[in-house]
Amino acid sequence: MPPATVNLTIRAAYELASDVLVRNGMSALHADAVARSVVAGQHDECHSHGLYRLLVCVKGLRSGKVSGNAMPALLDVAPSIVRVDARSAFSQVAFNQATPVLVLKARESGMAALSINNCYHFSALWQEVEALAEQGVAAIAMTPSHAYVAPAGGKQPLFGTNPFAFAWPRPGKAPFVFDFATSVAARGEVELALRNQQPLPDGWAIDRNGDPTNDPHEALQGAMLPFGSYKGSALSAMIELLAGPLLGDLMSFESLEHDGGARITPFHGELIIAFSPERFSGAALEANRARAEVLLQRIVGQGARLPSQRRFAARARSFREGVHLDEALYKEICAL
Amino acid sequence: MPPATVNLTIRAAYELASDVLVRNGMSALHADAVARSVVAGQHDECHSHGLYRLLVCVKGLRSGKVSGNAMPALLDVAPSIVRVDARSAFSQVAFNQATPVLVLKARESGMAALSINNCYHFSALWQEVEALAEQGVAAIAMTPSHAYVAPAGGKQPLFGTNPFAFAWPRPGKAPFVFDFATSVAARGEVELALRNQQPLPDGWAIDRNGDPTNDPHEALQGAMLPFGSYKGSALSAMIELLAGPLLGDLMSFESLEHDGGARITPFHGELIIAFSPERFSGAALEANRARAEVLLQRIVGQGARLPSQRRFAARARSFREGVHLDEALYKEICAL
Repeated sequence: MPPATVNLTIRAAYELASDVLVRNGMSALHADAVARSVVAGQHDECHSHGLYRLLVCVKGLRSGKVSGNAMPALLDVAPSIVRVDARSAFSQVAFNQATPVLVLKARESGMAALSINNCYHFSALWQEVEALAEQGVAAIAMTPSHAYVAPAGGKQPLFGTNPFAFAWPRPGKAPFVFDFATSVAARGEVELALRNQQPLPDGWAIDRNGDPTNDPHEALQGAMLPFGSYKGSALSAMIELLAGPLLGDLMSFESLEHDGGARITPFHGELIIAFSPERFSGAALEANRARAEVLLQRIVGQGARLPSQRRFAARARSFREGVHLDEALYKEICAL
Repeated sequence: MPPATVNLTIRAAYELASDVLVRNGMSALHADAVARSVVAGQHDECHSHGLYRLLVCVKGLRSGKVSGNAMPALLDVAPSIVRVDARSAFSQVAFNQATPVLVLKARESGMAALSINNCYHFSALWQEVEALAEQGVAAIAMTPSHAYVAPAGGKQPLFGTNPFAFAWPRPGKAPFVFDFATSVAARGEVELALRNQQPLPDGWAIDRNGDPTNDPHEALQGAMLPFGSYKGSALSAMIELLAGPLLGDLMSFESLEHDGGARITPFHGELIIAFSPERFSGAALEANRARAEVLLQRIVGQGARLPSQRRFAARARSFREGVHLDEALYKEICAL
């Protein structure tokens, strides 16, 4: 028998999320931004960033570590750098307030960086790069997390699951978007395997001694592995450096130390880079856009999928039918 | 019995390379830049970009497609974009001439992009990002190549082996550098397996029907696969879009069409992004640099390697002992 589910309209899901957040001390501004974010995760059936996240979010607020009402502070650092200090709040409001400045700088300079600092990680990066692509810029985003992943050839957790995301604007169409963890699997998948008492696939993790393990319990005591061996490991190191020391913010091992066992989401910085196709392409803009479409058509035309096709299909379905939520989770959220 | 080798000083290797290039019609400016590049590949024991490349280079010159003397044309596109048109020459002179402008723009704006256009690919990207790190900026470089790689889930070659490189400056030390192909292996490794009649490892390639193959001949008729499955595939698509249509230059499938069977190196654009640590970090520069060192120490300290350690060791050895070249290859080069 499948688990009982509750069907909510997008509007009802938003109100549920927003009410829970306000009830737990979040300002209306933050509650609105975070509610939009978890509803977006839910309607895209990206459940780890859906309404489930409200549990994580409320835990953060109740810990006293996450601010529910800090106003982000914007700083115009350089012609191509805008910094926003999230002041220990979740990242959404900081991102929303800094985005117009980032887009303006990218249009003026050709490209620009947004440095989000001192934020508790919350959103999936695809939400941010997708929002930027909707405004006509191509965007890369990256962030450290908590030190759960060993470098290739190493034995101890040092890197985060460090997501890397990219979006390419396609006027009149959903953008080309991807967002992947640089670990071979998400931390949540290992935790799920533990809960379900299932072995992990080969190549996912090592135990405390650095030996390969299929046991999720041993894996959580040891370390996860980067995707694609030394290449994914190199990419993960780059994310630590660029979204850590370059921005003056914490790396994954520092974020985990800062957490001090509270098990809150990572506290860190995020680097977002925006490229203006208008400035790069000039008069060739339309011709270049049309050529990009040929590439994307040739991916789909040979039976491969574009990275976010499944999410976009889920979104269309959710807009028609509303979202479906596990009944036990629904009750847990209502009780927050 | 190991193959006979010739031992050359760095200086002798440079003169050999430079003489061959000038003899084959290259201007002194281009010959100097290309000779330095192949000698750097050789002394780092990165043989596919070492003196062996002179064969490829001379083939390009003799085909009439590659210009041996075009002067690159620089264009100041935007505060954070400099473009250099290589005008159908190899990329080194264009890179060398545009680099001071890129670094200046990065220091002024915080970050900047270099768009190298209409160049025949030649150098390994680590040479370029390493040169930038030596000048104090962090750098990312990427370029399409020829369409040899199928997207994950696809059946036909569409992407190039699309390298992605990164360097992080470490004042007083060799920078943190990596440079990897987004294909699971380099094209040259498949060609080598064919020459040696060895089977390919699982997961490297598919045949013309899109089925997995271990036969290097079938693989060269079919397609290579991206590293890390759909994640490497997504990264490769990003490189096609950013270093192709964004810059107004050819993607890998277009480069292969442009080649028209001549089997010259890819003709394309390259995107290099430079970040100024001074502008990003401000007063926290030294503290942030020191934190980055902690990360790198924790990689090495647990027995993992930094990505370029092997190359740097080879470099030190070559500077002491000179470079070693297969005698047959040496004779082939001398005869060019």
